[in-house]
Amino acid sequence: MVIFKSKRKIGLSPGSMVYVGEKTDEPVKISIMDYNAERLDEFPEATAEDIKHCMAEDSVTWINLSGIHDLAIVENIGKQFDLHPLLMEDIVNTHHRAKIDDYENYLFLVLKMVFREPEASSLLFEHVCLVIGPDYLISFQERESDVFGPVRERLIKAKGRIRKSGVDYLGYALIDMIVDHYYVILEQMGEEIEAIQDESLGNPTTKTLNAIHDVRHRIVFLRKTIWPMREMISSLLRKESELIHSGVKVYLQDVYDHVIQVIDTVETYRDLLSGTLDSYMSSVSNKMNETMKVLTVMATLFIPLTFFAGIYGMNFKYMPELEWRYAYPAFWVLVITVFSLMIWWFKNKKWL
Amino acid sequence: MVIFKSKRKIGLSPGSMVYVGEKTDEPVKISIMDYNAERLDEFPEATAEDIKHCMAEDSVTWINLSGIHDLAIVENIGKQFDLHPLLMEDIVNTHHRAKIDDYENYLFLVLKMVFREPEASSLLFEHVCLVIGPDYLISFQERESDVFGPVRERLIKAKGRIRKSGVDYLGYALIDMIVDHYYVILEQMGEEIEAIQDESLGNPTTKTLNAIHDVRHRIVFLRKTIWPMREMISSLLRKESELIHSGVKVYLQDVYDHVIQVIDTVETYRDLLSGTLDSYMSSVSNKMNETMKVLTVMATLFIPLTFFAGIYGMNFKYMPELEWRYAYPAFWVLVITVFSLMIWWFKNKKWL
Amino acid sequence: MVIFKSKRKIGLSPGSMVYVGEKTDEPVKISIMDYNAERLDEFPEATAEDIKHCMAEDSVTWINLSGIHDLAIVENIGKQFDLHPLLMEDIVNTHHRAKIDDYENYLFLVLKMVFREPEASSLLFEHVCLVIGPDYLISFQERESDVFGPVRERLIKAKGRIRKSGVDYLGYALIDMIVDHYYVILEQMGEEIEAIQDESLGNPTTKTLNAIHDVRHRIVFLRKTIWPMREMISSLLRKESELIHSGVKVYLQDVYDHVIQVIDTVETYRDLLSGTLDSYMSSVSNKMNETMKVLTVMATLFIPLTFFAGIYGMNFKYMPELEWRYAYPAFWVLVITVFSLMIWWFKNKKWL
Amino acid sequence: MVIFKSKRKIGLSPGSMVYVGEKTDEPVKISIMDYNAERLDEFPEATAEDIKHCMAEDSVTWINLSGIHDLAIVENIGKQFDLHPLLMEDIVNTHHRAKIDDYENYLFLVLKMVFREPEASSLLFEHVCLVIGPDYLISFQERESDVFGPVRERLIKAKGRIRKSGVDYLGYALIDMIVDHYYVILEQMGEEIEAIQDESLGNPTTKTLNAIHDVRHRIVFLRKTIWPMREMISSLLRKESELIHSGVKVYLQDVYDHVIQVIDTVETYRDLLSGTLDSYMSSVSNKMNETMKVLTVMATLFIPLTFFAGIYGMNFKYMPELEWRYAYPAFWVLVITVFSLMIWWFKNKKWL
Amino acid sequence: MVIFKSKRKIGLSPGSMVYVGEKTDEPVKISIMDYNAERLDEFPEATAEDIKHCMAEDSVTWINLSGIHDLAIVENIGKQFDLHPLLMEDIVNTHHRAKIDDYENYLFLVLKMVFREPEASSLLFEHVCLVIGPDYLISFQERESDVFGPVRERLIKAKGRIRKSGVDYLGYALIDMIVDHYYVILEQMGEEIEAIQDESLGNPTTKTLNAIHDVRHRIVFLRKTIWPMREMISSLLRKESELIHSGVKVYLQDVYDHVIQVIDTVETYRDLLSGTLDSYMSSVSNKMNETMKVLTVMATLFIPLTFFAGIYGMNFKYMPELEWRYAYPAFWVLVITVFSLMIWWFKNKKWL
Repeated sequence: MVIFKSKRKIGLSPGSMVYVGEKTDEPVKISIMDYNAERLDEFPEATAEDIKHCMAEDSVTWINLSGIHDLAIVENIGKQFDLHPLLMEDIVNTHHRAKIDDYENYLFLVLKMVFREPEASSLLFEHVCLVIGPDYLISFQERESDVFGPVRERLIKAKGRIRKSGVDYLGYALIDMIVDHYYVILEQMGEEIEAIQDESLGNPTTKTLNAIHDVRHRIVFLRKTIWPMREMISSLLRKESELIHSGVKVYLQDVYDHVIQVIDTVETYRDLLSGTLDSYMSSVSNKMNETMKVLTVMATLFIPLTFFAGIYGMNFKYMPELEWRYAYPAFWVLVITVFSLMIWWFKNKKWL
Repeated sequence: MVIFKSKRKIGLSPGSMVYVGEKTDEPVKISIMDYNAERLDEFPEATAEDIKHCMAEDSVTWINLSGIHDLAIVENIGKQFDLHPLLMEDIVNTHHRAKIDDYENYLFLVLKMVFREPEASSLLFEHVCLVIGPDYLISFQERESDVFGPVRERLIKAKGRIRKSGVDYLGYALIDMIVDHYYVILEQMGEEIEAIQDESLGNPTTKTLNAIHDVRHRIVFLRKTIWPMREMISSLLRKESELIHSGVKVYLQDVYDHVIQVIDTVETYRDLLSGTLDSYMSSVSNKMNETMKVLTVMATLFIPLTFFAGIYGMNFKYMPELEWRYAYPAFWVLVITVFSLMIWWFKNKKWL
Repeated sequence: MVIFKSKRKIGLSPGSMVYVGEKTDEPVKISIMDYNAERLDEFPEATAEDIKHCMAEDSVTWINLSGIHDLAIVENIGKQFDLHPLLMEDIVNTHHRAKIDDYENYLFLVLKMVFREPEASSLLFEHVCLVIGPDYLISFQERESDVFGPVRERLIKAKGRIRKSGVDYLGYALIDMIVDHYYVILEQMGEEIEAIQDESLGNPTTKTLNAIHDVRHRIVFLRKTIWPMREMISSLLRKESELIHSGVKVYLQDVYDHVIQVIDTVETYRDLLSGTLDSYMSSVSNKMNETMKVLTVMATLFIPLTFFAGIYGMNFKYMPELEWRYAYPAFWVLVITVFSLMIWWFKNKKWL
Repeated sequence: MVIFKSKRKIGLSPGSMVYVGEKTDEPVKISIMDYNAERLDEFPEATAEDIKHCMAEDSVTWINLSGIHDLAIVENIGKQFDLHPLLMEDIVNTHHRAKIDDYENYLFLVLKMVFREPEASSLLFEHVCLVIGPDYLISFQERESDVFGPVRERLIKAKGRIRKSGVDYLGYALIDMIVDHYYVILEQMGEEIEAIQDESLGNPTTKTLNAIHDVRHRIVFLRKTIWPMREMISSLLRKESELIHSGVKVYLQDVYDHVIQVIDTVETYRDLLSGTLDSYMSSVSNKMNETMKVLTVMATLFIPLTFFAGIYGMNFKYMPELEWRYAYPAFWVLVITVFSLMIWWFKNKKWL
Repeated sequence: MVIFKSKRKIGLSPGSMVYVGEKTDEPVKISIMDYNAERLDEFPEATAEDIKHCMAEDSVTWINLSGIHDLAIVENIGKQFDLHPLLMEDIVNTHHRAKIDDYENYLFLVLKMVFREPEASSLLFEHVCLVIGPDYLISFQERESDVFGPVRERLIKAKGRIRKSGVDYLGYALIDMIVDHYYVILEQMGEEIEAIQDESLGNPTTKTLNAIHDVRHRIVFLRKTIWPMREMISSLLRKESELIHSGVKVYLQDVYDHVIQVIDTVETYRDLLSGTLDSYMSSVSNKMNETMKVLTVMATLFIPLTFFAGIYGMNFKYMPELEWRYAYPAFWVLVITVFSLMIWWFKNKKWL
């Protein structure tokens, strides 16, 4: 994962659009859903004409862009809806944090979607922007992932109150969808942490340590992403804008609760992991201590005895002990006595 | 303990109820207590009819559900009292944190009850929800534990002011009951910590270390649970709702004080444990140092001497010393001198 | 010290009095001082009659209870002054933190007095409660210690403005007395910390480590106790109650300053101790490193040489070197050369 | 980098100018850009006369000083625009933190520009001050670096809205330029951190450790510099001054977002580095443990066996074993048995 | 340095003056400067009469006391100006933290001056109190140091606006003087820290460690002193008192900025030192690891070989190898093979 990338070349005027995300060749796809309580029209591959047509109707128009790497297309949309240049710059600056800007005629929301990278454990953040106007909502997605599929389905099947409600409720549904993905990540992470804890109680290895550091690494990025989301939704809740009706506030409060729960859980994970790391480190210390004791016991037992054996291996001509009849058995008595005393002393020190 | 579970399948509309707690086959039990200062009717196994009947009377009606895994029953209650779908979703989302929502006609409170798991040291949290209306209170319990037994008893025996007071006082009594259970957990934990401290001053073992980490682990979850409880009760205190009479506020302030005391105590426990862990770790370091000194002293004393013994164990044909008359006693003099110097040097270094 | 004790049996109604402090057989002593600027009456062992009599007079009546373990006596006082049941519960719940409750007709203050245990270094906290009414002040002390002696003396000798002032000034004097005791504890602790710092610079031993952990342990409890005291006095300062005259506020501000200074000093102690612990730990690490170097130097010097001596101690029949004329002196040349190279290498590595 | 330098000699009156930056002989260069939507006049080496002339016109006058070490020149400018002495003192006090002062007729902004030192990794901070008046802006740069070049170019080429806007927009453009430079530094730092992380997962060496500490060191100074910048821009945003038009606020909000992102990223870097340091330290611990095990295994295997070999190398006259026919093979059987048992035991302990 | 001293004997009434600073025999010196824009009278050794005389004039009267250990003299001043007893108590309580009290007719400021102890590195804090009245300023200094000399000089030489301004500007000048001294301390400390960092990158020794702990120790006290100073000046800035004219506020804001810079720098120093300590500790760990490797390599290389040499030093009668013709060269082949394999293995493990 690229940690951080500059947003634009130094010296460009504000509003200059520079795409800093991954390069890709896939075409940008514009889709439209135009609906009210009675009817729903879907344009999977919409043109500028379709947009104009839909906007003319008395309906909620949801325009979705999958892919923002084609600056010309994004800019066209911007011109059609007369969006502020600074906003345009932020849409394609995929490293921007979550935020909300109020441009009177429309609200601009930056959100961060989270995925797990397909074959790896690392996280992938997607830059998602919403422009919420009085009767239209434009969503910009960095990748062509079908994050909003379930919302689309609910619209088509007219499930729940989504078709009967306005643009603000649609905005809520999309934010809710994004926050829900954090739950999935947290659930997986929770299972990993439990596995790590079990391992670190049983027989922790270097692999356990790497797993701890790996999850900690991901948590750093999760925290960095989720805190601005919290701020953003909280300021959306407190906003006195005509674009957000009071009936939708209770739903936004619910999303806010979910974000708080995500933060809570992330903080709990941090505490758990730091506890596990402490426990791992102290277990390593303990093991080293054990190893040291074994070494010390062995060395202390045999080094003096080896010295004594060495003494009587010397070849001096005049060594009276060598001639004695019971010198050898006496030597063994000495060895066994010293050995026993040492053992007793170690037992006393609780080393054995 | 399952650390965290996703609340619902991604893409369900808000208000969709998904039970994420432990599966169980026990039937959901609905019980009602209907009372005023003069009379009290109890329905241990109530039906929808009983509820309708009690609601009609001019009395306080307390409906209690033990078990929320049977979504149909919970939903029925919801419909009967016209409860908001988001509220219904939160009742069965057993991983939700404590909170309070104000739905004008009723207050919705999420509380977390704490138990100690029967045969283990780990904690068990129970999801408890209260809906406080003008003349009724519905309590939803995740498990069939008789947490509220003592309140029921006080109602029957008409002890204290509970029968003379309204729904808000009943709500206070239930919250108070739940907070009281934290005191029990804290008292047990306090005793454990004292035992750990005594051990870590005496002869700390790996078992002590595991005990420290075990209590720390539980404290992470206690903190995670109690802080939202504090927020919830604090916002209940500040709420200007007709459902909470000012006479009950002094009691709620008392519960609030208790929650603060719980938090205080949990934080103190954390500090104590982190002190104990530091003390354990430095004692391990000290012990390793001691072990090292023993090893070094032994090795340093005997390794050079063994070398000298080895010298005179060599079989060179021409080694003049071997022939000397007093070579052997001289060797011993050398050994004892070196030995004494070493001992003196170690004493000097405070290693002996 | 018992870390924490549950306040009451689960299920008792609020206001149920349960004494959780140490059991004792000493009788509860009630004493009264009844005074105004002109006269002072003292009742060292007062009865209910005395109280009634004093309350009738136009004077300040200070009733002091030494000992709160006799619930009947405490309850009688409560009834005589019509005190709220929740307040009564808190008087005998000796583990309650400092707080202030405003019951309109009187203020209820919980304070924590601190002592040093006579023969030990650990701290002893005493639960002290004050009820401040319009013309009376009731003080409840957990133990029969003469904490308030100096105030009594100032009253008798009519020193300072105490006799000319009202109940609120008396309350201030008592709080001030309690805060002053923290200064004594802090001064003693400061001396201990200085001694520890001197030791840890000189020759730190395991005793130093234990001293550090011991003081840290006490500081955890001091902090736990003093922060609520600060809150309590701060909210007393901001309170708009008829019971506290503005003239007394400047004195309360002074006590508040003292509490802040206590907190400041406690935090400084924490920082100093954590610095001392770091310094101790790094000195242990350094020492271990030194020990290791000695061991390594000795082993590295002699182990290869011993091997060479071992070689020429072998009994092979055909070992040409053994027959050589100058083999033995050559061996010594080898030994001394290897030795010198090693020494030079160690010097190079700054190990010697 | 000089960490900190006193701002002035003790005892000088406030407003005394003392230059504390690096000494240099380069001349101070004054340049002017005088423009409105229609025309632009540039004076690369301006005199006091030029300033007077430009101020007389109905245009935006941007006066830029490269170098502030020549106090006389700075003072002249100060007199010409009647700037407050305290402001003059802060212009040349190059260690001052970022701040904003409102002198009614003009705003005074202190900013810190950041560079990477040409051939080294350490950071270089440049002191930049802006005085924003109703129709003029004076910028003071500590060094003769062309930080503001791109803005000058945009002015000349009349790109974007800069020529059509007033002094406040010019001020915004300069601040934006400075904040953009932080992005560059962060991007470089991010790459370094990624390299460090890769290294610390593979084979961490002391060089890795030094790199960690080096980046941490730079982050300390980045944080110290950027937090006051945030405060400064935030208070500029909230300021109700006639000098800042509401149309420019949306641009300032954008710069503010960028500063927040810089802070966010710096904090993330800190977390990542502290994780990497932990991971490095635990890998060192693990390696030491491995080394210890090898030593212990080798010593434990051979020390007892060497002792036995030593026994039968003794020269006692009466050692019956020496004469036995199969003593030698029996000795090997003993050696192999002991060896196998040891190996089995180590395997059991997971040391092999 | 005495860490903390109790302010007064327990039980004294509030306002009782107890001097807790160092005892000294030097006489207390009172000096007066009486001035307005036109004239200045100086009384280096003033009497009570002089004070009365000066107060009568229409001028600013600055009374300075060097030394506060003579309680009688301090008390006299107090009576002459009718100062509050609590204020008198705080003047002589030299351990009081910085604060500001508003007594309507005058402001009372407690400040802490900082010095470096002449021959040592430790810090010395001086208790300085200011009483700012409508036309007089009394300053109380704990020691007879000429801290305020430069202000006196500016008054005499009529430099700057000091003679034309009132008491409040004089007060500002004195506070500014005190804050300036912190800059000096910080500059010295900064140089020490740079030296420590250079050392810890090169060859850190125990002396480096002690230097780190020494500076950390001083920083604890600097922080403890400077934070209340910040609070004090901030509340002076916000105060709506007739004694502080709005024209002086811009100067006070300047002092406030300086205090913030001091705090900033102290916090930076903390971060730098904690980084340096981490770096020192990890370098110790690394070195220990290196030592261990040397030991392990040496022991592992020679211990098995010594065993083999020991084998063939045994004196068994029947050891066929001993008789073989090429046993000895074969032994050397074995030794060199084992040796080479070990070296290869160590190289593989990156230990060599």
